[in-house]
Amino acid sequence: MNKIRSAKRMDDIQPFHVMELLTRARQLEAEGRDIIHMEVGEPDFTTPEPIIQAGIEALQAGKTHYTPAAGIPELRQALSGFYQQRYGVKIDPARILITPGASGALLLATGVLLDIGDELIMADPGYPCNRNFTRFVEARARMVPVDADSGYQLTAEHVKQAWNAQTAGVLLASPANPTGTLVGAEQLKAIHQQVAAKGGSLIVDEIYHGLVYDSEAQTALAISDDIFVINSFSKYFNMTGWRLGWMVVPQAYIPLADKLAQNLFLAAPTLAQHAALACFEPETLAILEARRLEFQKRRDFLLPALRELGFDIPLTPEGAFYIYANCESVTDDSFSFSQELLEEAGVAVTPGLDFGHHRAAQHLRFAYTTSVERLAEGVERIRKFLEK
Amino acid sequence: MNKIRSAKRMDDIQPFHVMELLTRARQLEAEGRDIIHMEVGEPDFTTPEPIIQAGIEALQAGKTHYTPAAGIPELRQALSGFYQQRYGVKIDPARILITPGASGALLLATGVLLDIGDELIMADPGYPCNRNFTRFVEARARMVPVDADSGYQLTAEHVKQAWNAQTAGVLLASPANPTGTLVGAEQLKAIHQQVAAKGGSLIVDEIYHGLVYDSEAQTALAISDDIFVINSFSKYFNMTGWRLGWMVVPQAYIPLADKLAQNLFLAAPTLAQHAALACFEPETLAILEARRLEFQKRRDFLLPALRELGFDIPLTPEGAFYIYANCESVTDDSFSFSQELLEEAGVAVTPGLDFGHHRAAQHLRFAYTTSVERLAEGVERIRKFLEK
Repeated sequence: MNKIRSAKRMDDIQPFHVMELLTRARQLEAEGRDIIHMEVGEPDFTTPEPIIQAGIEALQAGKTHYTPAAGIPELRQALSGFYQQRYGVKIDPARILITPGASGALLLATGVLLDIGDELIMADPGYPCNRNFTRFVEARARMVPVDADSGYQLTAEHVKQAWNAQTAGVLLASPANPTGTLVGAEQLKAIHQQVAAKGGSLIVDEIYHGLVYDSEAQTALAISDDIFVINSFSKYFNMTGWRLGWMVVPQAYIPLADKLAQNLFLAAPTLAQHAALACFEPETLAILEARRLEFQKRRDFLLPALRELGFDIPLTPEGAFYIYANCESVTDDSFSFSQELLEEAGVAVTPGLDFGHHRAAQHLRFAYTTSVERLAEGVERIRKFLEK
Repeated sequence: MNKIRSAKRMDDIQPFHVMELLTRARQLEAEGRDIIHMEVGEPDFTTPEPIIQAGIEALQAGKTHYTPAAGIPELRQALSGFYQQRYGVKIDPARILITPGASGALLLATGVLLDIGDELIMADPGYPCNRNFTRFVEARARMVPVDADSGYQLTAEHVKQAWNAQTAGVLLASPANPTGTLVGAEQLKAIHQQVAAKGGSLIVDEIYHGLVYDSEAQTALAISDDIFVINSFSKYFNMTGWRLGWMVVPQAYIPLADKLAQNLFLAAPTLAQHAALACFEPETLAILEARRLEFQKRRDFLLPALRELGFDIPLTPEGAFYIYANCESVTDDSFSFSQELLEEAGVAVTPGLDFGHHRAAQHLRFAYTTSVERLAEGVERIRKFLEK
């Protein structure tokens, strides 16, 4: 590439390394190779039929114009009802903004809250876009290394240590990507107290809520109404391609988030909003529950299988559809390992590098977004690869 | 509102004033008043039937997963074909990135190009989000006042005068919102030359292309392949609510725009991308041509009617669906005037303030996004209102 004029932020914002791997995987598939995909960060399930049907009806009814920037009132109301029903938490629909995916919500949250040079504390490893959204608005991600001893999550002590004059707030994710771990209720309260005492903002990413296997996850909104909660129809509701999410904001931030949404997006996709009204129907929820159990079955297969192969997974991931595995016993370079595994064994996994820098070369993320049969085949191929 | 912690950019990013007017208009309608909408910035037409049908088929086929960040290859290919067919210009599909609306494209363009404090030269009046996107990434909009003598467009001379050490580039829109005017081919060449000589970037917004009434509009891509061209399926293709646009970038910027899209959006809505494949079918293009003629009919009705009422409209707007009228003969405060017009006459129009500061109080934007019958009723009501 010739030297071109571009903003400095573009030097810091990295592409997902897994995209390169994915491109290579597709090449191999085009050449006739069979590839086991354990790198894909979206449910393999198609959107449930009742939601598709609602989408078709919305199309037939000609729902093709813009909606208000914050979304259609019916959907905001439905989400409010969902918080009441699922979590027993009362949320004013006016606080719920419908966004183009959780990505849209993250852009609004960082845009509304972060000035040049402000720091947002977040866990390393973590979802890679988080630090890039922060960089995009000229703020900084303060990456705090986390390990199994804190459930790969930030603690109040981490927050205390990392806080400085530039800190504007803290971002948590529960369940987290890539580790699948939750923030415990007590720890969440302690972090919230600390952030509130400092006058900062707490953002909690709950996009994997609903996909939790060993306990009930409570929303951070149960603790306080001054927390920014980001969620999405992508993962639990299997609506990735529709690009629909939401954010619950503290009352005083409604006008700010709304005017920023007006300017940055105009509105979330209309059709997706109408289709999503079917998410809360008993029929849809039953399908989603069956799929949740299927994810659980996959986790319960893959976790011991990976451990048996020599991967060190000190904690049972309680949610999402990822297993974050220490691969030190088989390689000291997870990035090269993932490339070799693809080329030689036809198994695609995501290298730790995509989630941060802390012990990235010693970790791989396995996604169980494919059937138990395919996972079993993947495990077999890895076993043979390691035996060589 | 209590004093809350928010980023400084939020003090500078303004909501659209017309939104307040729209909210009030809806209140009045809920009370039983009939309101003529001449403020709406989207076609009144529902998306053409073949596109809706393609959307339904995509849903039935279960196209609900993420697409690549730059969009599905078939749509990028189809757009390349469209440039060839309509403009006789050859564009490598790899240079065409599918985005969530033109909004997504503007976010990518400003994000890739503008550093803190960089200036982007643009016309005042102009589309209000443009300066807000610039502000969002901590750059600055250099608003250059334009008048009828330059067709409400920037000239090479304007650009020369406005250029300084902070200038990173120029943003043009053709046809422009709110004025409906085009940038002439010679002027465009001269501006491009000037920007290229300075090592800056030229961004051209062509989202109203296709809605041009007195001539054929040529794409800026015919002049050079180092121009960033932003376009959308919203206006000409009547797909506003689907949130789908695109950007053609210079070859060297493909990886930068792609990695930023990965991080900021993941991808544009899948369903919209598949539905949009039907945009280029002869049947769809025939429907769009009929609608273009309908817009022309409306313009040709509204323009003389507004002039007769005393509004000064020195130029015939050649494209889009707006008439930007000087209202000095009837008011020296277009903002209050638009409020009174709504309350007393039941006609909604957009005050100049939404498009900048240059002579904003002396201008109103009339959108002809409603039928000739409704426009005629609106004109009648304004006539009576002015006679009081």
